[in-house]
Amino acid sequence: MLSRSGRLSAAMKQAKLSALLVTHLPDVRWLSGFTGSNAIVAGIAGRNGLRLRLFTDGRYTQQAKQEVRSMPVTVPKRAITAEAVTWLEKNRVTRCGFDSSSVTVASLEAMRKAVSSGKRRSLFQPAPGIVSTLREVKDAAEIDALRRAAHLGCHLYEDLLGWIEPGMTEAAVAAELEHRARLAGAEAMSFETIVASGVRGGLPHGRASAKRLTAGEMVTLDLGVILDGYCSDMTRTVYLGTGKRVSSREAGQRRVYETVLQAQMAAVDAVQPGATCEEVDEAARQILRAAGLEKEFSHSTGHGVGLEIHEGPRIGAKVKQKLEPGMVITIEPGAYLAGKFGVRIEDTVLVTARGAEILTPSPKAWTEL
Amino acid sequence: MLSRSGRLSAAMKQAKLSALLVTHLPDVRWLSGFTGSNAIVAGIAGRNGLRLRLFTDGRYTQQAKQEVRSMPVTVPKRAITAEAVTWLEKNRVTRCGFDSSSVTVASLEAMRKAVSSGKRRSLFQPAPGIVSTLREVKDAAEIDALRRAAHLGCHLYEDLLGWIEPGMTEAAVAAELEHRARLAGAEAMSFETIVASGVRGGLPHGRASAKRLTAGEMVTLDLGVILDGYCSDMTRTVYLGTGKRVSSREAGQRRVYETVLQAQMAAVDAVQPGATCEEVDEAARQILRAAGLEKEFSHSTGHGVGLEIHEGPRIGAKVKQKLEPGMVITIEPGAYLAGKFGVRIEDTVLVTARGAEILTPSPKAWTEL
Repeated sequence: MLSRSGRLSAAMKQAKLSALLVTHLPDVRWLSGFTGSNAIVAGIAGRNGLRLRLFTDGRYTQQAKQEVRSMPVTVPKRAITAEAVTWLEKNRVTRCGFDSSSVTVASLEAMRKAVSSGKRRSLFQPAPGIVSTLREVKDAAEIDALRRAAHLGCHLYEDLLGWIEPGMTEAAVAAELEHRARLAGAEAMSFETIVASGVRGGLPHGRASAKRLTAGEMVTLDLGVILDGYCSDMTRTVYLGTGKRVSSREAGQRRVYETVLQAQMAAVDAVQPGATCEEVDEAARQILRAAGLEKEFSHSTGHGVGLEIHEGPRIGAKVKQKLEPGMVITIEPGAYLAGKFGVRIEDTVLVTARGAEILTPSPKAWTEL
Repeated sequence: MLSRSGRLSAAMKQAKLSALLVTHLPDVRWLSGFTGSNAIVAGIAGRNGLRLRLFTDGRYTQQAKQEVRSMPVTVPKRAITAEAVTWLEKNRVTRCGFDSSSVTVASLEAMRKAVSSGKRRSLFQPAPGIVSTLREVKDAAEIDALRRAAHLGCHLYEDLLGWIEPGMTEAAVAAELEHRARLAGAEAMSFETIVASGVRGGLPHGRASAKRLTAGEMVTLDLGVILDGYCSDMTRTVYLGTGKRVSSREAGQRRVYETVLQAQMAAVDAVQPGATCEEVDEAARQILRAAGLEKEFSHSTGHGVGLEIHEGPRIGAKVKQKLEPGMVITIEPGAYLAGKFGVRIEDTVLVTARGAEILTPSPKAWTEL
């Protein structure tokens, strides 16, 4: 695979851009390695390839020196936007792309105000998602980081099966899990841990609440950690056993569980290079539809994962984009029976040359605790 | 004080806006009470006052019903932006404000595409920060929530003084603190907890690392919790004693500490209605300047706190904005001696009719553990 700057150079050529301002921080990190909270990467295409330069402020002088190896760093006294624009002008750039899907209207105005020549209106040209699209296909170092993050997520989940029990509140389960994640080396959680039990499982976006776990209920656990900047994401739904004979309520929950599991595995099976996102989504959806659960599956089947917890591609209906080797995506169908219970099962998978590799191989057969 | 919608109505009148699209989620929450992750509030000014309406998607039907009492809710099948724009058009709105400091260039394009009439270019008018400026002055319910969050922050800090000790890693201290925060009812931390010891204290933005705390070092602890959606923010720097006679190194650290403390208290004293942000900043800065530490204080003195951890006003040089009763701001000067150590002391304070009320009253005299 080409280097990241090589891939950017090719993408800029295709978009007919001779220069680019990169302001979205995950894009900045991907290009430069810089992890601070205020920076811009500017790029100028030339005969000798793409010249990149990072601009940050005085708080990060030391940190930028340590982290940024592949491009020069400028630490101006004034605002970094103004400095970056001046650098472009000095180099006689006449058309510069910017990511219109992350730059605000006010920021674009500030960029334009920094232009000293008469080209205020014409210098900047929308190039939505130019870097984040490249980030959809991960290189070897990224796959390694994602694999390690996913592995830690699995470890935490499997460990949790040993200590979760009826009587604990959802919030206490989330707190304990997050504490163990930190002690195990996670930099942070990649999103607010979801622990949704019983009727709360029927809310697709139930947060961990003060509700106590109760025997006879399903519990949906959706968790992710950040390791070296990369996110993990997985969901399992487990059953808290009553120790009694299987009730009709339990049997009903189990039927829905097995259907969601079938849907999830069918979607994983559909993952391969060249398959479209909508095909993968439909593989899950048609199984839920056949079981009369289509309306209960109210979201897309998945999304890309990387430096951000939600990246492209979106694995949903009407998305014609084709999967490519190196993409890392979630497959997470669910069924939410409002006022009753819910099930979601989610793996993070790597698109390989021949199909999918599951990065989160924790057991997903019906689990009774 | 007027109701929130009453204040928005007055602000729209002043900005000559007959309608408004509110898309920034903390603004949406402030106006409607809705805490989900996808929503727009649209407002239309009329003879009978401001009509507000919330738009969200199918995942949040139940939640919106529970949370939103003060305005009707629409849950369309199509994208909420399109639905909101259609509602404006149906009501013959011709000019509608939007927050250009949070709306991206691509989102504005999507808003414009949703316009069915020939007014695509003229319907939307930038109104930067129109709701977030109102949010700078807190009402009684918000002050109560901020007071409770700040109180929990103080409790966690004072508790920490009993268990922190040399040999622990910075990351383990952060993990333990965050665990106790969750168990004490915090929904989340309002930012990544900073534990920066020894030379790492010399980095203004040092995260908690794998470095171990060592006797004879200063430790900077910057922490905040979220309670009922509102953020707390406080910093203390403590000294890990050696049990030996005061060394010249310790004496040097203590001199810097006392100077930063003086600067911090001077800035708190400068807080009163009518004082400008730059005056408060200068009150801290001149004490550090007199002690030869001006360059070591490389950031602003503070910022507003509320539903977001960083809000207006910014308490910094050249900011002419005047403080008003009901604003809640941080006062957090510091001194960072690169390669040596650092000190920061931060309180969250409420601007009252007569001055400042400190919401984070934990002791800040030199503390040796």
